[in-house]
Amino acid sequence: MNGTGNLMDFLDEPFPDVGTYEDFHTIDWLREKSRDTDRHRKITTKSKESYWELIKSLLDAWSGWVVMLLIGMLTGTLAGVIDLAVDWMTDLKEGVCLSAFYYSHEQCCWTSNETTFDDRDKCPQWQKWAELMTGHSEGAGAYVLNYFLYVLWALLFSFLAVSLVRVFAPYACGSGIPEIKTILSGFIIRGYLGKWTLLIKTVTLVLAVSSGLSLGKEGPLVHVACCCGNLFCSLFSKYSKNEGKRREVLSAAAAAGVSVAFGAPIGGVLFSLEEVSYYFPLKTLWRSFFAALVAAFTLRAINPFGNSRLVLFYVEYHTPWRRKTTLLGKYPVLEVIVITGITAVLAFPNPYTRRSTSELISELFNDCGALESSQLCDYVNNPNMSRPVDDIPDRPAGPGVYSALWQLALALIFKIVITIFTFGMKIPSGLFIPSMAVGAIAGRIVGIAVEQMAYHHHDWIIFKNWCRPGADCVTPGLYAMVGAAACLGGVTRMTVSLVVIMFELTGGLEYIVPLMAAAVTSKWVADAFGKEGIYESHIQLNGYPYLDVRDEFTHRTLATDVMRPRRSEPPLAVLTQDSTTVEDVETLIKDTDYNGFPVVVSRESERLIGFVQRRELTVAIKTARQKQDGVVSSSVVYFTEDNPQVAEACDPQPLKLRRILNLSPFTVTDHTPMETVVDIFRKLGLRQCLVTRSGRLLGIITKKDVLRHMAQMMNQDPESIMFN
Amino acid sequence: MNGTGNLMDFLDEPFPDVGTYEDFHTIDWLREKSRDTDRHRKITTKSKESYWELIKSLLDAWSGWVVMLLIGMLTGTLAGVIDLAVDWMTDLKEGVCLSAFYYSHEQCCWTSNETTFDDRDKCPQWQKWAELMTGHSEGAGAYVLNYFLYVLWALLFSFLAVSLVRVFAPYACGSGIPEIKTILSGFIIRGYLGKWTLLIKTVTLVLAVSSGLSLGKEGPLVHVACCCGNLFCSLFSKYSKNEGKRREVLSAAAAAGVSVAFGAPIGGVLFSLEEVSYYFPLKTLWRSFFAALVAAFTLRAINPFGNSRLVLFYVEYHTPWRRKTTLLGKYPVLEVIVITGITAVLAFPNPYTRRSTSELISELFNDCGALESSQLCDYVNNPNMSRPVDDIPDRPAGPGVYSALWQLALALIFKIVITIFTFGMKIPSGLFIPSMAVGAIAGRIVGIAVEQMAYHHHDWIIFKNWCRPGADCVTPGLYAMVGAAACLGGVTRMTVSLVVIMFELTGGLEYIVPLMAAAVTSKWVADAFGKEGIYESHIQLNGYPYLDVRDEFTHRTLATDVMRPRRSEPPLAVLTQDSTTVEDVETLIKDTDYNGFPVVVSRESERLIGFVQRRELTVAIKTARQKQDGVVSSSVVYFTEDNPQVAEACDPQPLKLRRILNLSPFTVTDHTPMETVVDIFRKLGLRQCLVTRSGRLLGIITKKDVLRHMAQMMNQDPESIMFN
Repeated sequence: MNGTGNLMDFLDEPFPDVGTYEDFHTIDWLREKSRDTDRHRKITTKSKESYWELIKSLLDAWSGWVVMLLIGMLTGTLAGVIDLAVDWMTDLKEGVCLSAFYYSHEQCCWTSNETTFDDRDKCPQWQKWAELMTGHSEGAGAYVLNYFLYVLWALLFSFLAVSLVRVFAPYACGSGIPEIKTILSGFIIRGYLGKWTLLIKTVTLVLAVSSGLSLGKEGPLVHVACCCGNLFCSLFSKYSKNEGKRREVLSAAAAAGVSVAFGAPIGGVLFSLEEVSYYFPLKTLWRSFFAALVAAFTLRAINPFGNSRLVLFYVEYHTPWRRKTTLLGKYPVLEVIVITGITAVLAFPNPYTRRSTSELISELFNDCGALESSQLCDYVNNPNMSRPVDDIPDRPAGPGVYSALWQLALALIFKIVITIFTFGMKIPSGLFIPSMAVGAIAGRIVGIAVEQMAYHHHDWIIFKNWCRPGADCVTPGLYAMVGAAACLGGVTRMTVSLVVIMFELTGGLEYIVPLMAAAVTSKWVADAFGKEGIYESHIQLNGYPYLDVRDEFTHRTLATDVMRPRRSEPPLAVLTQDSTTVEDVETLIKDTDYNGFPVVVSRESERLIGFVQRRELTVAIKTARQKQDGVVSSSVVYFTEDNPQVAEACDPQPLKLRRILNLSPFTVTDHTPMETVVDIFRKLGLRQCLVTRSGRLLGIITKKDVLRHMAQMMNQDPESIMFN
Repeated sequence: MNGTGNLMDFLDEPFPDVGTYEDFHTIDWLREKSRDTDRHRKITTKSKESYWELIKSLLDAWSGWVVMLLIGMLTGTLAGVIDLAVDWMTDLKEGVCLSAFYYSHEQCCWTSNETTFDDRDKCPQWQKWAELMTGHSEGAGAYVLNYFLYVLWALLFSFLAVSLVRVFAPYACGSGIPEIKTILSGFIIRGYLGKWTLLIKTVTLVLAVSSGLSLGKEGPLVHVACCCGNLFCSLFSKYSKNEGKRREVLSAAAAAGVSVAFGAPIGGVLFSLEEVSYYFPLKTLWRSFFAALVAAFTLRAINPFGNSRLVLFYVEYHTPWRRKTTLLGKYPVLEVIVITGITAVLAFPNPYTRRSTSELISELFNDCGALESSQLCDYVNNPNMSRPVDDIPDRPAGPGVYSALWQLALALIFKIVITIFTFGMKIPSGLFIPSMAVGAIAGRIVGIAVEQMAYHHHDWIIFKNWCRPGADCVTPGLYAMVGAAACLGGVTRMTVSLVVIMFELTGGLEYIVPLMAAAVTSKWVADAFGKEGIYESHIQLNGYPYLDVRDEFTHRTLATDVMRPRRSEPPLAVLTQDSTTVEDVETLIKDTDYNGFPVVVSRESERLIGFVQRRELTVAIKTARQKQDGVVSSSVVYFTEDNPQVAEACDPQPLKLRRILNLSPFTVTDHTPMETVVDIFRKLGLRQCLVTRSGRLLGIITKKDVLRHMAQMMNQDPESIMFN
């Protein structure tokens, strides 16, 4: 007599398609969960029958861990391949390796015997394009030729990227995190995590990053990891046939994605928990951790020049922001070409924007040791230089530092402006690394300024107590790190996961206080401008039906204010338990586009007995008409246990549909505060909820109604919620 | 017309006591939440009236952060004081400092000028008791006297601890974590987090740890932190008057407790999330992180000899396990004295059990550097000792290592046996450090065995590839660390938080893989013996009404099987909306002990209109009888908007009680699977739920009914659920 149970017995076999949902619809979490429990019960019962069934049940129990292992391995491998390809193609814009064309600059000189320690970057095998083509490596002519080819390669890469995305997989553009958040909250977007998207996103991500655009590869890596997760779900019916279970796997895959993006397995798990996931049971926490670890170590095993520091810093991350429509947005290919051109032309002359953003961040984070050759470390030497490397005192800045400061300031402005225009282009793109870069540049500039102030004015009150002359009291690299964390925190509003990712990146637990202070401050400041992080803004812009856990609903409205039908509208479309005919039902289905219909005892009493899904009703009637004798348009459809009283013998045979009736629909009373209703939708993952008063059915509230109402209460356009 | 809203207007002012719950009852999360929203709305509305109100509203908004700051500071201070006191009293069992009696051994020799670097532990100011009393520091007599005084001090400390707990604060015993879990899930235990408990627990914790019993101080520190949290809640009506909001603060306090126990702020937050908390919104995540950080840094600021390594390792933790009753359990003081006596007598002769457990763990974790003087590092020297410290190759073990192995084996057996008996005694006690010690000893023994095997048989297949002679290929200290993590993981079933705590303790991210493998393996092995960790077992033993998030309910029962009244029982006690008299209500309240009553339109129609709380009904009728003219026993009580039709003019005045009627009671249909019902209770934190069919009220399901049913389904005694 279990409504849901029977439903499954009836549906699983004859119509395999019935349990599923339509595209751009929301799943019913409670129903998915109870379907999984039924499946589990069946397997447990069967497992007592034979050894073979027992083995099958054990395999089923372990399949979750197997999927995690596979996801971790594939994600790690893809991230490794992407890293290698980006390396090679970024260097290809500059020159080529004569010993083997598929070597990057670093690999080329690494394998060369003629490299000296001081000039690790220079070796005869690596030739810049001008040198290769004209034989001259110096001079204005060579510079212009190199400049021209740099821009040309960048344009070629970005053109390829945008064309591939446009032709083969439109879902591959952007970072994908807002969409993944929406999918994890229970929305269906078919193909968003498909095999094509996986393939095209991987290829175009390499092209987009290599083109030198101001974008990161970390957000897209989360999308790639989720595609891997979806791929492996299809191997196990446990996950492929249950949208709820599938989302558990996807949450873990997102953790694996962040894990490889930053080499930060714990940060990845926390990111998935704090930022991405909607339903995150403890079981998923453990599995995510496992997947994240496997992915991180697969990546480390693949990356051939991976000393751990490099892997840790070989990081970017990103958040997406896409404009719904712009003038340029209508011509995506042109938009990409123009932005790439501008980026490449402006980036080449400045050494801080020419190199890859992750290298830039790495240099900004680093402190000036004795051996550091960077321009940023061109300090005037002090006499007492015999000290150990980690205790170099503050020194006056040399001319190199001052010119570096100017270049950094220009790079800062450039990065801020170009990043704003880069997001939303129709190529895979992330905001994480660009925003870290902006923060790191600003932080380093402030750091050097404070350092020089402390050196020249160490008698000022603020420096007096902790800054004696000749001591190392200001570390500009730490300012850069804190700046990066603050900027990232302001953009994404991450807190705990941000701090964990930052210290997994930098490998030190010591900086936890400044990082924490930066994360909290930037969150407070950013919250003063608006509560939403970039992901939430994006979800709102695109009108996805996402019920944010963080939005607090504090208005005083009641269920009766939100439910439909409104006063002016026609009454609710209902079925009666034993007096509707097949024809009536078919008309109702044709005339309305509701996802389901409540079933009542009679129109007079309005006592609710259950709810039928539109999809199941359609299939059941179609099948009955084909297979069951005597079912015609005038047959009575009944949902009761017993046959209805048939008035005359010549009446057509009635059609029993109790099996597709959900006998436990969710109800609230019309006096229930909307605050509670929102909570119920959020926590139980409902699709719809019926409204009653004193046992009479009054109306229905769907997830879309809830979202529209929330938008309205926040003075937003309720029509911005576009999907259901 | 908002039921809950009106309820508040009516109740807040005249009967301040009415919003609260009785002792050993469960709170209604939804109701607490909606009360807080009402309060918040009121403040927001008022804040527009004047600047003073605006300031008050800002203070209210910031009070959460202020409470966190205060909790962090007090928790850190208490932890620091406890550390110092334990240090001093542990050394008091051994001897006394002549320069200042309140110095511990380490402080005494630290301040002495006569200490050499090699013998940091020896200085003339520090005298063992025998030396002080007889003048002889060597010989059998001195040994016996020291032994005797060691046992005597231990007995004195533990006697004081158990007496203080018994007389002043019975709730101070044990670790408190199971009770805190239960409280956080919504149960009321008055006084459990009171000021007396805080004071007595702090004092007796010092005594219990100093007595040398096999227990840790970390679990009790979580209890202490939660007491601090409760204390500061009382400063702000936002938290003191709302049981739901109070629990948010307590979750963060638990994180601060773990943070100071281990010096692991992130581990603390994860522990609170994974192990302790029930309702953990993202806001609480950020605040917990803040509280944990403040606590950790307050502790670091207080601890005077705190080089960071020491603080990090000055850790223990514990989990509680109390036997419901034993023969000895009836005489708690005697039990403590006997166990302390046995512990002290057996512990003194073995150097590995005589010292404090955290020192033991620290030594076991450490690797044998060149300067290490420990007996565990008595290896036969190799000729090539000029290598740097961190690259000492494997060497054959010397006689010291072999005798240390024997002592460790004895210590292992002793620790396992005595720990089992120590838990459940009526003193503050934790299981964390003892179980880590057991794991560390076992791990170190295995580590040394593998090391020696690898040295003597480096041609064996398993060693061949990674163990060349003269290389350092086995690190026994790492085995100890992994053993400790595995043992702790098996006891508590922590995974992610365990790994994070372990690496925050040891300060290195490198060991994440072995630690992770240990945590997962020990969880799998332990789960094969039973799914519950020690906290859950304890909660079950004590019969607390705790709905575990991890228990999956997979049985096929329906709401109708669980609801009451059962078939054989008398019908449900209900009130009608306009035909019950005051006398009827009073009789109903007297004859039953239900927490509330459903209100229906009439007994015939059984249409549900709302639910009234027993407590509110009692107060309302009592007040009306006193204050409202014309209300007598035969007055009709009505819950409708309009007056009921009064038959005759001489009838007494009716009593309107709509204001205390909850117009949005939670309902499910009788066909709802229990799986869904359990989910609803868990996620929404309900206290009770009404069961209907076709709009007719059939029965009621309370949280206790759910827990009993779950116990029954797991073949446990349903009567073990004792409270409601």
